[in-house]
Amino acid sequence: MRLATIRTADGTRAGRVEGDDIVLLDASDVGAVLRSGRDSTAVAMADGPTVAWADAHPAPLVTHPDKIVCVGVNYLDHIAEMGRERPSAPTYFAKYRRALIGARDDIALPPLDVSTHIDWEAELAIVIGNEVRHADRSEAEAAIAGFTVLNDVSVRDYQRRTTQFLAGKTFEGMTPLGPVMVSTDEVGDGSGLAITTEVDGVVKQSSNTSELCFTAVDIVADLSRIITLEPGDIIATGTPGGVGAARTPPEWMTDGTVVRCAIDQIGETHNICRR
Amino acid sequence: MRLATIRTADGTRAGRVEGDDIVLLDASDVGAVLRSGRDSTAVAMADGPTVAWADAHPAPLVTHPDKIVCVGVNYLDHIAEMGRERPSAPTYFAKYRRALIGARDDIALPPLDVSTHIDWEAELAIVIGNEVRHADRSEAEAAIAGFTVLNDVSVRDYQRRTTQFLAGKTFEGMTPLGPVMVSTDEVGDGSGLAITTEVDGVVKQSSNTSELCFTAVDIVADLSRIITLEPGDIIATGTPGGVGAARTPPEWMTDGTVVRCAIDQIGETHNICRR
Repeated sequence: MRLATIRTADGTRAGRVEGDDIVLLDASDVGAVLRSGRDSTAVAMADGPTVAWADAHPAPLVTHPDKIVCVGVNYLDHIAEMGRERPSAPTYFAKYRRALIGARDDIALPPLDVSTHIDWEAELAIVIGNEVRHADRSEAEAAIAGFTVLNDVSVRDYQRRTTQFLAGKTFEGMTPLGPVMVSTDEVGDGSGLAITTEVDGVVKQSSNTSELCFTAVDIVADLSRIITLEPGDIIATGTPGGVGAARTPPEWMTDGTVVRCAIDQIGETHNICRR
Repeated sequence: MRLATIRTADGTRAGRVEGDDIVLLDASDVGAVLRSGRDSTAVAMADGPTVAWADAHPAPLVTHPDKIVCVGVNYLDHIAEMGRERPSAPTYFAKYRRALIGARDDIALPPLDVSTHIDWEAELAIVIGNEVRHADRSEAEAAIAGFTVLNDVSVRDYQRRTTQFLAGKTFEGMTPLGPVMVSTDEVGDGSGLAITTEVDGVVKQSSNTSELCFTAVDIVADLSRIITLEPGDIIATGTPGGVGAARTPPEWMTDGTVVRCAIDQIGETHNICRR
């Protein structure tokens, strides 16, 4: 099952992608579908008006997640390019809701006098389906509703002006999320998927989710020892090698840059940067 | 004006503290009062049923903030004790909503096999009253509704297991917030206030908000370049010297520890740690 959140004249609306169409569901977004506790078979069978998926305007897949957790330094190849050691625990930082945009929306670049160091980061994102706390591995696995794509667009000078990444990671309107969540019965545990970024048509990141140090299940189990995860929570699992900051010379996105982050079997974000 | 959020049989409720009483307002929490855009004079004059403040059970002052932003390394004396340099920009990290508890609630210690390194951090917290983005200093000042107390209880081994503080700062049910927000017309810009922590009756932190490197207005203006701040957002401004981790030997809170964080003219959190 592939679920999406689209914009309509009456606000956002969840839907189920069926071939070239999207069947609209009785919920404002995918987060609301998950929080409603609806049986997934019922969601898969629900009838409703349809619109053409090609004409749809995707909103952030979950419009108001309780949490957006990001994992840093989690791909073996990215760890190597950033000159870091293999970690013994996942590195977590946060984003706030207002960072999120839809999978086709423009990325809102900050004013030139704030920053020009704008980088891409393709990430596999976990969508939580059930409340879970102190989970063992099987509970962690069962808590994952599916996976989507998140481009963790980063303002590198803000990320690095102190020890803490948050400032450079939560700029408003800069984090594409979506366009679809693919459920685990279709895509499994999220491993073994090709993940790529193209910037203005040139491949910049090309890896595979099997390069993850900490898998989706590892991360959910670990996080659940800290705090309850709940339906609609989004967990971005980190980015592979090939970011702009690690290139010589560094490469930044600017007004008009087109960035595509694609994950095999899931989908892609496709956005234009606008100052 | 002093606003609080208390627990009632029908859920949480905002109120205005008047002497020994609290006048209940038509809103579920202080966040809802601020988001409603009500004129502060109207809030100050609103009538309603009263309950004795001494008998009230404070909930987290804002139960569902859109953002909880924390500032690290922001007191000159704490910077010295942690061996850090004076920062050129504020250090930001986040907490999630489920970290928050009321100002008299028990602090939920994690299981012994998760962590025993539980520390205190008294903080002056800003409560945002108006939406603000790219604020100059006067807009930043006007966006602050008032101030409250936050005990940024920290799980030090989780805070330090990676470079990013989030994991050690957002444990569920460990961050007391409240019990009252004192409006800026009473407490000014939050500077010049004594701030203390007592642990089992012994003073551990004793400083003054004039020791802040980055003032409340500095922080609001800077954050607003990153993201829109909105009514009910909470910004904890950092903690002074005297934390348990910086003592020789280190001191940790354990089952039964009583911790009071007090700020002159505002109030105090007063909590017992329970495993």
